[in-house]
Amino acid sequence: MQVEAGPLLQQINYPDDLRKLQPAELEKVCDELRQFIIDMVSVNGGHFAASLGVVELTVALHYALQTPYDQIIFDVGHQAYGHKILTGRREVFHTNRIFGGISGFPKRGESEYDTFGVGHSSTSISAALGMAVASEYKGEKDRQHVAIIGDGALTGGMAFEALNHAGIEKSNLLVILNDNCMSIDPNVGAMKEYLTSITTSKSYNKFRDDLIAVLAKISKNGPDAYGWAKKLEQSIKGTLLKNANLFESLNFRYFGPVDGHDVVKLAKTIEDLRHIPGPKLLHAVTVKGKGYALAEKDQTKWHAPGLFDKITGEIKKSVVDKPQPPKYQDVFGYTLVELATDNDKIMGVTPAMPSGSSMNIMMKAMPNRAFDVGIAEQHAVTFSAGLATQGMVPFCNIYSSFMQRAYDQVIHDVALQKLNVVLCLDRAGLVGADGPTHHGAYDIAFMRCIPNMVVSAPMNEEELRNLMYTAQLPNKGPFVIRYPRGSGVMSDWKRPFTEIAVGKGRKIHDGEELAILSFGAIGNEVTKAIRLLNQDGIYPAHYDLRFAKPLDEALLHEVFNHYSKVITVEDGALMGGIGSAILEFMADHCYNAQVVRLGIGDEVVEHGEQAELWKLCQYDAISIVSASKRLATSIKTDAMVS
Amino acid sequence: MQVEAGPLLQQINYPDDLRKLQPAELEKVCDELRQFIIDMVSVNGGHFAASLGVVELTVALHYALQTPYDQIIFDVGHQAYGHKILTGRREVFHTNRIFGGISGFPKRGESEYDTFGVGHSSTSISAALGMAVASEYKGEKDRQHVAIIGDGALTGGMAFEALNHAGIEKSNLLVILNDNCMSIDPNVGAMKEYLTSITTSKSYNKFRDDLIAVLAKISKNGPDAYGWAKKLEQSIKGTLLKNANLFESLNFRYFGPVDGHDVVKLAKTIEDLRHIPGPKLLHAVTVKGKGYALAEKDQTKWHAPGLFDKITGEIKKSVVDKPQPPKYQDVFGYTLVELATDNDKIMGVTPAMPSGSSMNIMMKAMPNRAFDVGIAEQHAVTFSAGLATQGMVPFCNIYSSFMQRAYDQVIHDVALQKLNVVLCLDRAGLVGADGPTHHGAYDIAFMRCIPNMVVSAPMNEEELRNLMYTAQLPNKGPFVIRYPRGSGVMSDWKRPFTEIAVGKGRKIHDGEELAILSFGAIGNEVTKAIRLLNQDGIYPAHYDLRFAKPLDEALLHEVFNHYSKVITVEDGALMGGIGSAILEFMADHCYNAQVVRLGIGDEVVEHGEQAELWKLCQYDAISIVSASKRLATSIKTDAMVS
Repeated sequence: MQVEAGPLLQQINYPDDLRKLQPAELEKVCDELRQFIIDMVSVNGGHFAASLGVVELTVALHYALQTPYDQIIFDVGHQAYGHKILTGRREVFHTNRIFGGISGFPKRGESEYDTFGVGHSSTSISAALGMAVASEYKGEKDRQHVAIIGDGALTGGMAFEALNHAGIEKSNLLVILNDNCMSIDPNVGAMKEYLTSITTSKSYNKFRDDLIAVLAKISKNGPDAYGWAKKLEQSIKGTLLKNANLFESLNFRYFGPVDGHDVVKLAKTIEDLRHIPGPKLLHAVTVKGKGYALAEKDQTKWHAPGLFDKITGEIKKSVVDKPQPPKYQDVFGYTLVELATDNDKIMGVTPAMPSGSSMNIMMKAMPNRAFDVGIAEQHAVTFSAGLATQGMVPFCNIYSSFMQRAYDQVIHDVALQKLNVVLCLDRAGLVGADGPTHHGAYDIAFMRCIPNMVVSAPMNEEELRNLMYTAQLPNKGPFVIRYPRGSGVMSDWKRPFTEIAVGKGRKIHDGEELAILSFGAIGNEVTKAIRLLNQDGIYPAHYDLRFAKPLDEALLHEVFNHYSKVITVEDGALMGGIGSAILEFMADHCYNAQVVRLGIGDEVVEHGEQAELWKLCQYDAISIVSASKRLATSIKTDAMVS
Repeated sequence: MQVEAGPLLQQINYPDDLRKLQPAELEKVCDELRQFIIDMVSVNGGHFAASLGVVELTVALHYALQTPYDQIIFDVGHQAYGHKILTGRREVFHTNRIFGGISGFPKRGESEYDTFGVGHSSTSISAALGMAVASEYKGEKDRQHVAIIGDGALTGGMAFEALNHAGIEKSNLLVILNDNCMSIDPNVGAMKEYLTSITTSKSYNKFRDDLIAVLAKISKNGPDAYGWAKKLEQSIKGTLLKNANLFESLNFRYFGPVDGHDVVKLAKTIEDLRHIPGPKLLHAVTVKGKGYALAEKDQTKWHAPGLFDKITGEIKKSVVDKPQPPKYQDVFGYTLVELATDNDKIMGVTPAMPSGSSMNIMMKAMPNRAFDVGIAEQHAVTFSAGLATQGMVPFCNIYSSFMQRAYDQVIHDVALQKLNVVLCLDRAGLVGADGPTHHGAYDIAFMRCIPNMVVSAPMNEEELRNLMYTAQLPNKGPFVIRYPRGSGVMSDWKRPFTEIAVGKGRKIHDGEELAILSFGAIGNEVTKAIRLLNQDGIYPAHYDLRFAKPLDEALLHEVFNHYSKVITVEDGALMGGIGSAILEFMADHCYNAQVVRLGIGDEVVEHGEQAELWKLCQYDAISIVSASKRLATSIKTDAMVS
C-alpha cells in the first residue's frame, strides 16, 4: 500500500537533493523520514525498530558524504529502510519484501547506492576494507568507505578478523559502531558489557584530557612531584593510553561515544572524520525503535512486528475461525523443554536467535542450561561440541543459511569426532520475504557429504517431536534436523514421543506405476498434489524419506522394484540434494527408472511468499501435479537427447 | 625410526610420573623432551618449531594440573608433540603422521589426554568453554579447563566469538596465550602489534602499581593536589584500568606477560591460577623453535622442515637424476605474478598461508597488491568480494579444508552477487600426512550446489595456468580452481596461455565400450590405469571433465551416446561429487548406462601418503584397473539388488 511522504521528504529523490538543504532543516527531514517508515511498515510490514534507530545516522551520512562515490555499507541491512527511501526508492518502497518488489536488504542490483549486498551479519567491515584498499590502489585518495555495524553484529568473529586486518592497512576506512545494545534479542557478551562501560562511565577522551591537565598542575608542586609526574606522563602516553580503548588497541582511532540522534552534530562529525586518514571508529549510541514509544520499550517484539495500527500500536493478527497449527519453531521450543525435563544432559545453544528459534522458552525455563552466545555461529557449534565431550547432549539451533557460517565447525569439531550434537536447522528451504541471503537452500547438499552425519527432516510437527526425541537418545552421533520457517499442519501436535529408527523412512501409501518420494514438510504439497491427481485417475505412491542420510535402502529397493517412474521432491537445491542421493543409490544398485527431481534449480531465488516461490521453482502442489502427469504419460527412451 | 629418550624422560610414561619429580628437575625434563623432539623430527619428519616453543609450557601444565581430569586443549595442535610424548605415546612417537601410526594432531580416539581433536585454527577456546560450562553444571568446581592458543590463532574470528561469550560465563576457564609472533609465516595484524606493545613496553600490571603509588605520594603535596589525585584515582580505577587491557575489556583477568621458557615459574603460576575463578588469560611469551638455533632464526622454514641433519641443520632433499615437475603451489605462485604483470586488476589474498600457498611470490614481487590477512578465511573471502566490487580481480587462495570456514562468505558475498573472485582451492583432495582435518574432501559437493559458481580442476600444470588465465578474463564471475597438494606431472610447464571455454572438458582419447571420466589431477592415475588396461586388451576412452560446473553437456551427450559403461574418478567425496553430477545429467536427459563412481566413500579417511590413501579409497591406478575390468566384464541387469 502506498503512503504519502512529508513535504520535505517528497522533494528528496536522491542524496543530491538532501545535500541542497541547510543543516537546520535536517531534523525535519529526520522527522518526516521516521514518520514515513512508521506509515509504511505499519501497513506493509517488514523490519521496523532497526531503521527507526538510524534515521539520523542515515541522513547525516548521505548529507556529509558524496554518495554513491563515497561508499556506505549497512551491516545486516535490517536498518537500511531510510537509506533506501533517500536513494531513489521512496516511490517503490511499498513493494518492499513483496514478490517482484524491492528487497528488504541492500542489494547491488537494485541501486548504485547499495554498494554491497547484505543480509547475514558482520560482513560490512571486510567488504568496506576491500573497497577502501582498491580505492587506495587506484589513487582515489579522497574517497570515503564507511561500514555501519551494530554492537550485535560486532560479536560475529569475521568483524573482528576485519578489524585486525584493517588496523594495519592505511586505507581510508570509517567504521560506525551503531551501539543500541540489541541484536534481534538483547545483545549479549563481554563486548556489549565493555561498550556499556565506556558509554556510561566518564568518556575516555575526556578522561585523557583531564589526566594530562592534572599532570601539568601536579608538576608545579616541587621537583619530586615534577619528576614523578613526568615519568607518569610518559608511561601513560606510551603504554596506557595507547591501550586504554579496545579499538585503539587494534590501531583504530576511536571517536565517541556520540549521541546517534543528534543529526546536525553527526553530520559535522562525519564531515570532520573525512580528513583523518587510516582506520577510524565512530561510536554512536542509538536507541533501537527511536521515536516510536512502544518499539523503544519492547525492541525485540518490534524488530519486525508485522502489520500494526500505528496509532494504538495494536499488532494485527490474521482472523481465524479455528485452532491453527503451531509454528515449527514453537514445537521445537516447547518440545526441547519437555525433553530436557526428562534428560538432564540436554542443553540448548542459540547464536543470538532466542526469540526467532523459540530457544527463549528453554532459556526462561532452564536458564543454566540454555545459552545465547551472541551472533557467533562458529563458536555456537564448537561450544556445543565441547559440551558433548562431557556427556551433554546439546541442541544447537541455527537457521539453515546461517549454518553456512559454521560449516567447518560442523565437519571438524562435530562430525570427525562423532559427537552427540543435535544440529537443528531452522528456516530450512525457501524462507519467503527475507529472500536469497536467507533461503536455506543448500544444507541437504552440504550436510549430506559429511561422514558420520545423520540428516533428517520432519514432514509435520509430530515427526519433528519424534526426531528430536530420537536425536537425544544415547550415542546417536551428529544429528541434523531441518525444518522450515512457519506453521505446520497439525493442531493436535503434542503427542507422546516415539523413537524413529535412524535411516528409516515411511510409506504414506502405495500407488500405481508412479512413486513420489518427498523429504520434509514439502511432503504436504505432495499430499495435496496426490489428492488432485487421484481426481484424474492417477494414483502415485507416496513415501516420506525422513532421512537424506542414511537413506532407507530397504524402502528404496521396494520403490525401485515396484515403480519405474519416480519423482523426488525437496525444499532445497537439486544439485547434490536428496534427489541426487536417490540417483546415487540407483547407480550403486544398478536400478533403472525414470526419475524427475523437483526442488530448487541452479539459480538464485528471489524474495516472495513461500508458496509463490515454491510455484516459481515448480515444486508446489500444482507443479507436482503437472510433473506427475507428464511423467505418467511419458514413454521411456534409453537416450532422450534434449 | 625409533630414537632413544634421555634418562629422566624414559621414566615418564604418563603425567603422573612427571608429577612425582621435584620442581628442580623440571628443567632437565624440558631439555630431554626438547632433544627427543629434535631427534625424532630430524629422522621422521613432521612439525617442528612449534613444539620446541612450548616444551616448558607443556611440562608446566602437566606438572601443575591433574590431567586428564583437568583438561587441556592445544589450538591447531602443531605444537602438541611434547604433550603426546608425555602422555603415553613416547614409544610410538616414531609412527607420527605415518599411515597406521599416531596422528600429527591431538585426537580424541588416540588418548584420553587429547580432550578435543584439533587441526584447524582457533577452536580451542570454544571447546574449552563448552567443557568448563558442562563441568560447572555438573558441580565439578575444582576441575580446570585450559586452552593454549597462539597469537596467530587468536586472529581467527571464532576465537574472538569465544572470548566474547566466555567473558560473561562464570565457569573455570584458563586461556594461555602462546605469544611467539608467528603463524606458519610471521603473524600479521593489529592484534599482533598490540601484543608486541604490551610485551615490549612496561608491563601493564607494573604500571598500575606505579600509578597508584605515585598518586599516594602526590596527594601529600597540599589540598589541591590531594583533591586532584583522589579524583584521578577514582577515574583510573573506574574507567581506565578496567579498559586498559584488551582482554580485561572482555572481562578476562589478565596475567603476564610471563617468560614462556621458565618452566618452574610457569608451573607455579598455573598452580596459582587454579584458585582464581572465572575467565582468565595468561600471556606467555615464547620463541618458536626455541633451543634449536636455526629454527629460532628462520621459523617459517623450520615449521615443518622435512628430514634434516640435526647437527649441521642441512635439510635433506630427495636425490633426483632429472628435472622434477614443480609443485602445483609454485605453478600457482609464479603464474599469478605473470598474470598480474599484464593485468593490473589482479590482486592476491591469503589467510596466513603465504609460503604454503606460494602467495609469498606475489607478496614479494608486488607488495601493494598481495595481502596476508591473518588466519581469517571468512574475512579473506569477503575482503576479496569488496575488492571485486571495485573492478579488481582478486585471487583468493585458501586450502580446500580451510575454505569450509568461509563457506557462507562464498555463497552470501561472492556467489549471490556474482562477483569476479577467483577462489583457488589449494590442497584439494586427500592431502596425506595431515590427515582427516586437512583432507580437501568436500569442496566439489559444497561448491557445486551454489548458483553462479564455476567449479574447475586442472589435470596438470599447464591446465592450472590456463584455468588461472581464463578466470581473470573479464566477467567470468565466481570461479573455483581446485588443485592438489604436491607435484604435478610436467617438467616444461611454463607454456603460453590459452583461454579455456568455461564448461568445456576435453577428450584425451576415444575407446571401446567403456569410458572413464576424470576431474582434476587424479586423471593422471586414470592415464596410468589405461596403460595397464591396454596391455590386457581393454581400451577405455578417457575424458578430462575439467569443470564440475557447468558440466560439458556436449561432451556428456557424446559419452552416453557411445558408451554404456562409465567410470567417474574424483579426488573428493562421492556424495554430491562430480560422479553425482553426472548421474543428475543422465537422469535429466533420460540416459541409461552403468556408472561406477570412484572417489572418497562416506567415511573419515585417516592420514598417510597420498598414494596410500588413494589406494585405501580405491581410486589409485590399480583400483581403477580393477573397477574397469569388473565393469567391462559385467552383464547389466535392470535391478541388481545387492
